[in-house]
Amino acid sequence: MILYNMPSSGNSYKVRLLMALTGQKADLVDVEYGDPALNAAKAALPFGKAPVLVLVDGTHLAESNAILWHLAQGTAFWPSETLAQAQALSWMFWEQNQHEGVIAVRAALRTYPHRAAQATPERLAALLEQGNALLQIMEDHLSNRDWLVGNAASIADICLYAYTHSAETRGGYDLTPYPAIRAWLDRVAALPGYASL
Amino acid sequence: MILYNMPSSGNSYKVRLLMALTGQKADLVDVEYGDPALNAAKAALPFGKAPVLVLVDGTHLAESNAILWHLAQGTAFWPSETLAQAQALSWMFWEQNQHEGVIAVRAALRTYPHRAAQATPERLAALLEQGNALLQIMEDHLSNRDWLVGNAASIADICLYAYTHSAETRGGYDLTPYPAIRAWLDRVAALPGYASL
Repeated sequence: MILYNMPSSGNSYKVRLLMALTGQKADLVDVEYGDPALNAAKAALPFGKAPVLVLVDGTHLAESNAILWHLAQGTAFWPSETLAQAQALSWMFWEQNQHEGVIAVRAALRTYPHRAAQATPERLAALLEQGNALLQIMEDHLSNRDWLVGNAASIADICLYAYTHSAETRGGYDLTPYPAIRAWLDRVAALPGYASL
Repeated sequence: MILYNMPSSGNSYKVRLLMALTGQKADLVDVEYGDPALNAAKAALPFGKAPVLVLVDGTHLAESNAILWHLAQGTAFWPSETLAQAQALSWMFWEQNQHEGVIAVRAALRTYPHRAAQATPERLAALLEQGNALLQIMEDHLSNRDWLVGNAASIADICLYAYTHSAETRGGYDLTPYPAIRAWLDRVAALPGYASL
């Protein structure tokens, strides 16, 4: 397999993390904003974005969470019960619709030079408030359980981990008020095979 | 089953449409912006949003596309092959991360009174340009096939249909340049059991 991989992106990291945790391998083709390699690869990226996983039959599979789903089939990271599967997907769609559009966007505005013009104080303040409301939803849910769904780590956890574990360093969120999230981040980082980058 | 349903929302419509197409029923609890029923129901909505499907065991399942996945299990709307399943999810994650965040947001800015203050000419113009780029991706993909994935309608089509079929009337997009999208919209509307609202 080949993974079109953006090193700076949490969406790419989540795929690399699941591959590390499940012992799966792909050749990485790095494509980064501002790098001519990204434009050169655009035709291979169905929605014009990384990550994209090229399967052994040549299929180009886009969208980080669809790639997680594909790689998790037959592993412990895809829950065995249908209801838990639906709940894992619920967290993953929420991540792409809400969490990523706020917490990852705030990180992008703060760290990508090509986004700096959009990083107005008003926008950063609004994203801080919205992101804290989203983190509170995770905090409340994790306050009495170890994992987002069921009793074991699933792709829902890997999915949400990516931009939550960098929320302080890149997003500028203070995780001090979220002890359940911090304990959950530690649990993910303690999984056998964990890769920090 | 009970469906917490926002009548004005494409995310709720897609759930009602799949239930109509597959002969599944739920009691509707309508919750609309500005309606006290929405605040009264908030505690029942895991992410504070509709739609939420309450299953017969009492589980509250959130996120429209996770609900579609759940309702499609055992029906023809969930592809039988693993690769096609991954591709359907790829379109559905793209819908929540890209399409909905542009095309549905432009419709919301144009039609919801509580969003009117955000509907600046600059923002509407940017969303028009971004939305046309997203519609072009769908147009290119549908130019040589009838359905987004495989040879039959799947939940990927139901998912993307919701905000695409109202892109002209509510979003203010002109679909004239997208004949493949228009033909696909007609194919969805011709499915047995189709419900227009």
